[in-house]
Amino acid sequence: MTDPRIVKHARILVEYSTKVKAGDMVYLWLDLDAHPLAVEVIKQVASRGASSLLILDSSQLSRGYIDAVTEEGLDLFPKHQFEAVKASDVLIRLRSPSNTRALAGVDPKRLIHRQKTTRPISDEILEKRWCLTIHPNSGLAQEAKMSLTDYQDFVYGATLRDWDKESKLMFKLRDKLHEHTTIRFIGEDTDLQASTEDRTWVASTGTHNMPSGEVFTSPVESTVEGDIFFDIPFLYQGAEIQGVRLKFKEGKVVKFSAEKGQEALAAALDVDDGARYLGEMAIGTNRGIKRYTLNMLFDEKIGDTIHCALGNAYPECKGTNKSAVHIDIIKSMKDGGKILAGDEVIYENGKYFWE
Amino acid sequence: MTDPRIVKHARILVEYSTKVKAGDMVYLWLDLDAHPLAVEVIKQVASRGASSLLILDSSQLSRGYIDAVTEEGLDLFPKHQFEAVKASDVLIRLRSPSNTRALAGVDPKRLIHRQKTTRPISDEILEKRWCLTIHPNSGLAQEAKMSLTDYQDFVYGATLRDWDKESKLMFKLRDKLHEHTTIRFIGEDTDLQASTEDRTWVASTGTHNMPSGEVFTSPVESTVEGDIFFDIPFLYQGAEIQGVRLKFKEGKVVKFSAEKGQEALAAALDVDDGARYLGEMAIGTNRGIKRYTLNMLFDEKIGDTIHCALGNAYPECKGTNKSAVHIDIIKSMKDGGKILAGDEVIYENGKYFWE
Repeated sequence: MTDPRIVKHARILVEYSTKVKAGDMVYLWLDLDAHPLAVEVIKQVASRGASSLLILDSSQLSRGYIDAVTEEGLDLFPKHQFEAVKASDVLIRLRSPSNTRALAGVDPKRLIHRQKTTRPISDEILEKRWCLTIHPNSGLAQEAKMSLTDYQDFVYGATLRDWDKESKLMFKLRDKLHEHTTIRFIGEDTDLQASTEDRTWVASTGTHNMPSGEVFTSPVESTVEGDIFFDIPFLYQGAEIQGVRLKFKEGKVVKFSAEKGQEALAAALDVDDGARYLGEMAIGTNRGIKRYTLNMLFDEKIGDTIHCALGNAYPECKGTNKSAVHIDIIKSMKDGGKILAGDEVIYENGKYFWE
Repeated sequence: MTDPRIVKHARILVEYSTKVKAGDMVYLWLDLDAHPLAVEVIKQVASRGASSLLILDSSQLSRGYIDAVTEEGLDLFPKHQFEAVKASDVLIRLRSPSNTRALAGVDPKRLIHRQKTTRPISDEILEKRWCLTIHPNSGLAQEAKMSLTDYQDFVYGATLRDWDKESKLMFKLRDKLHEHTTIRFIGEDTDLQASTEDRTWVASTGTHNMPSGEVFTSPVESTVEGDIFFDIPFLYQGAEIQGVRLKFKEGKVVKFSAEKGQEALAAALDVDDGARYLGEMAIGTNRGIKRYTLNMLFDEKIGDTIHCALGNAYPECKGTNKSAVHIDIIKSMKDGGKILAGDEVIYENGKYFWE
């Protein structure tokens, strides 16, 4: 018998996240290890009178390709893939790399070259109903420093939620934030505020990322002022960075330190001018995620946290900051954190204003 | 280290069978168990400056789909798949079912319904450079009643051949057959002959089937006369049929028997009018295949055999017989068999005319 959690996961992806209906063409892009989830997804798709096309990826295929491809081949646009994407209504990406480090040692220039060539495909995907999720496997469990069993519990705890209920709470939070024109994070070594005037707060309710659970905006870049201390570690280009402290003046980082990974942080801030400004300020709301795993799909959504991202802003939030990077850094708020919208306390001592 | 035979197999498919060149779009349709071969194929494709798109199938996916799909869904044409095929130059199918009986118990009407819906895709594939092969796995080994190790030896013995040399011999045989207008098979309980006037003999040299190794035509239907005894068993709709004897008069089977599976044979002959006439007469030339495995991709190519097919003829041979079936039946010729083209003995006592 299939793990019933896989069946529920598939149902959430098809029914809730991408709302597959009769006649839909579904492009199901899976890693090899996600085959058990793919089987359940195609059943859900077929039972709704829609049609699946399965596109396979794997750690070995990716590495085999990038090592073997010629320089001219890096420029070759995969027209057959593009045509399949164009003819699809829904795209579901099932990530489950058997080896999260499969591309270690590859010249990053070749990877970026290839990404650039296939950019029209990524852009086309964003025009569709699309959702990204992961299927727990040994590779991801190992990356999270957990056993597979514990990792499965972790992933399904984050994913198999009542998303209609979660959405309602996120919309309530978003609407409250829209009543005001400033946001302020207060906590240990932290008092950071910014204007959000004419900016849009977006509730990420699991239609594009599964799991999800965050309400985010791009603040008015030049108005970010104050200090912030982020206690949760994160990865930047393979390096772990922890205990980041940032001081902002007129939107710009004017002082920074990290308890671990100071050099990597310095390198990130020096990528370009935009890397010293915030592209995002956000509140993580998924209480099914109780710990970090160094996987941003999960970490930025941990319940009772906030996060800020250095670098590129979101056009959908009317953000204007431009950068080649978008580096999310997360802070726990449960013990002593406070969030203010305007002069209204909307979160304090582990509770939202409605709790 | 990858089994070097997998690397050689991939090279034959890409270099010899489908002649992949820079800029080609390659549609690689694989069963899950064929992943190791797919990795080597995409490397070969990439190293030639071409681009692969991997379409996944599996026993579980096929069964999951057909059990779950709605009646209306069976009519839904997979436009995304069709567009990907249309945009491709080369199609390579890697068969490796984990369970060859995965569709047992499914209503055949549903399978035929689906085949009919997707027929434009199958037709489109035939317009491309295409090749079908298998990757040895436990499912296929079990079907062949062999251990996996023995089965791998069997498959690679049939596949990793000098195809240029094999082709030359097949062309020599084809050209000789074209010098004459009749074909005659003689052996135990066998003396069968037919006119091949104005018909085309085709050498199957491994460009569409890998392995291959047969020279075939569709005889002038009404001219098939005499008796034939086929000693090699075969499957028809899951039933094993063995020791078939057929008597032809004016092209039509007028008497038949089987040592095993008589009822199944009778049912096959009664499918339609065309099922009692021969759609194919052929000579198997792959001496890397020394035994039958109840897999027609291999069995009809066993070296030193002939086979005849009841039912549908090949338009490429200028055959005209029409039938819903095409049932290949095979006969060993090594011990005492003789083949005549016109009045010339072209094969006798295990040797071709050039040996």
